[in-house]
Amino acid sequence: MWADLEPVGRDPRGGYRRFAWTSADATLREWFEAEAARRGLDLVVDRAGNQWAWWGSPSAAAPGVVAGSHLDSVPNGGAFDGPLGVVSAFAAIDLLRSREHVPSRPIGVVNFGDEEGARFGVACAGSRLLTGALPVDRALALTDADGVGLAEALRAAGRPEPAADPEALARVGTFVELHVEQGRALAEPVGVATEIWPHGRWRITLDGEANHAGTTPLDARRDPMLDLADLVTSARAAASSHGVLATVGKVEVDPNGVNAIPSQVRAWLDCRGADPDAVAAVLADLDRFAPRRESWTGTTVFDPALAARLSGLLGGAPLLPTGAGHDAGILAAAGVPAAMLFVRNPTGVSHSPAEFAERADCHAGVEALADVLAELTR
Amino acid sequence: MWADLEPVGRDPRGGYRRFAWTSADATLREWFEAEAARRGLDLVVDRAGNQWAWWGSPSAAAPGVVAGSHLDSVPNGGAFDGPLGVVSAFAAIDLLRSREHVPSRPIGVVNFGDEEGARFGVACAGSRLLTGALPVDRALALTDADGVGLAEALRAAGRPEPAADPEALARVGTFVELHVEQGRALAEPVGVATEIWPHGRWRITLDGEANHAGTTPLDARRDPMLDLADLVTSARAAASSHGVLATVGKVEVDPNGVNAIPSQVRAWLDCRGADPDAVAAVLADLDRFAPRRESWTGTTVFDPALAARLSGLLGGAPLLPTGAGHDAGILAAAGVPAAMLFVRNPTGVSHSPAEFAERADCHAGVEALADVLAELTR
Repeated sequence: MWADLEPVGRDPRGGYRRFAWTSADATLREWFEAEAARRGLDLVVDRAGNQWAWWGSPSAAAPGVVAGSHLDSVPNGGAFDGPLGVVSAFAAIDLLRSREHVPSRPIGVVNFGDEEGARFGVACAGSRLLTGALPVDRALALTDADGVGLAEALRAAGRPEPAADPEALARVGTFVELHVEQGRALAEPVGVATEIWPHGRWRITLDGEANHAGTTPLDARRDPMLDLADLVTSARAAASSHGVLATVGKVEVDPNGVNAIPSQVRAWLDCRGADPDAVAAVLADLDRFAPRRESWTGTTVFDPALAARLSGLLGGAPLLPTGAGHDAGILAAAGVPAAMLFVRNPTGVSHSPAEFAERADCHAGVEALADVLAELTR
Repeated sequence: MWADLEPVGRDPRGGYRRFAWTSADATLREWFEAEAARRGLDLVVDRAGNQWAWWGSPSAAAPGVVAGSHLDSVPNGGAFDGPLGVVSAFAAIDLLRSREHVPSRPIGVVNFGDEEGARFGVACAGSRLLTGALPVDRALALTDADGVGLAEALRAAGRPEPAADPEALARVGTFVELHVEQGRALAEPVGVATEIWPHGRWRITLDGEANHAGTTPLDARRDPMLDLADLVTSARAAASSHGVLATVGKVEVDPNGVNAIPSQVRAWLDCRGADPDAVAAVLADLDRFAPRRESWTGTTVFDPALAARLSGLLGGAPLLPTGAGHDAGILAAAGVPAAMLFVRNPTGVSHSPAEFAERADCHAGVEALADVLAELTR
């Protein structure tokens, strides 16, 4: 399966660029359909556009156990973030069948749409639409960098207008998302998530006065690039002092000409950490830049009993929190018992072409996921 | 004439976006043709793509006096930078004719192509191609932000492959460029330029390590955005201490995602001042950023006798240097006697929609230019 995905959606600058509802995404969705068909699984596309492949027939009265993740990527992204969870879910079903496991409840594989939010700016858009955490009217107002609206992108991909889908959600009794770890917090091949840190995004607009770089005296300038430098330095200092993470990863400059003092610089701040009060303290330190909040998600605690049970089942696999948002967090917030398995990341690099997991660790992940699905469908 | 130009090539974000060899540029060139035809001037397009309108028939043996400037703009540019010089040249001819002036030598109006370099990155591309300062093979290797090559852009505009044009250059006996002043150095309506400061552009590539903003500890990061902050702050400090101008006006970030530590940030530095050694000292201070020079033009001194003569003719108009590059500087460097008239800029703002000159000062500029052309063709 890995070899089939390898060439899809290559970014010319390295790694992958698999944005939601593009032709690369369509190829990935066809791959999902084919893998479902090869295994005789029933394909369902919910009203939010997520793909499900069911072994057995779940219902609200008899919901199933679902594994999976997402197939889209950030720009210049890695091969593992997302696809490892979907591939591992299919591989775990193969392993269960080779073990002649007869599940007591249906087992499903899911591919959540637009998890990274790389195209429309909202992370976990597929799972948020499903649960209603992203209202349809807000989703329809989203546009990509080329001004293409979400509704138009869905239409171009042959999909109807999106909607929440409580029926599809009710078919999920338990969700287990396997994912490559994105830091270096995991020393064992496989770990179990305890919680997702609170995290948010803020947009900062720095206004200046456009002028000619060759004729405007330094003391007559209002150069917002200097404010950007101040913001970047101050954000790092504040994050360091409050013990959280802060990143300025996206910047836009107007008019972005070599010989023009910018009229405006826009910057985006990502801030997160174990303690929401510490994140708030960083934002308070940056108050003079008037950050405008674009999104905020509080701490998401995964079902502690389920996490403990999985850790025990996996021979005492380490329990660890994560700073990254995931679809499992969205489902947990919607009341679905949810858990995550992490596969060791030897370099800690993620969202990069250099993102990597050892083959042996990936196999250990599939074994662990199969054991978990077997346990939950005994 | 001003009213005809007013709607052409509006930038949706404000001001003008009149890039070389685009449809806006074609409209401006048609306007130039029409203004030439209305006055019975002979239209010549040289091999470098510049437009000339001649009153009389110049030759290498009997060269003419030329006024003019350019019609293209920077992104989000103003209405005056460039067009004021071309409009004033036509208006000066009208004034000379209304005075029944009979020129002893031909008088020309020129529209130099691609002066701002906003599309292909080389300022004064039209005049540099004409004089040979920009070799044809280097020009043909230029591409715009969409990857369109200069040759392709010219072809799309119905122009042949460009070439130096020494014959066209030899028809220019003296060149006088009228231009809006771009700082606030001019207290009178009209001034005369003495020199163009030495100026250059450098490209700085800041490499980092792409990684996930939510999972990478601060001390494990190689975040080039911090280096950008250092560069911006250091460039300003160095410019201030050495008494020159330095600007970081253009920045590109890869991958430019909110939740991604950038893998690379590219920044462009513009640095200029009266003293080339002071500019070199700024670059030395920034040596640790490994700036790569993209262009450098030493001090361009305009013909001092001609400048003094024009200042005297205009009732002792102030003599002043400028930090901005101009086609007149390219012609001066190629050995053509050249001068510049500046029209007062009350705010000092340029390369911005807010760029402005008072109507009375513009009329004073036309009068001054007519007087100069009359004096040079007596």
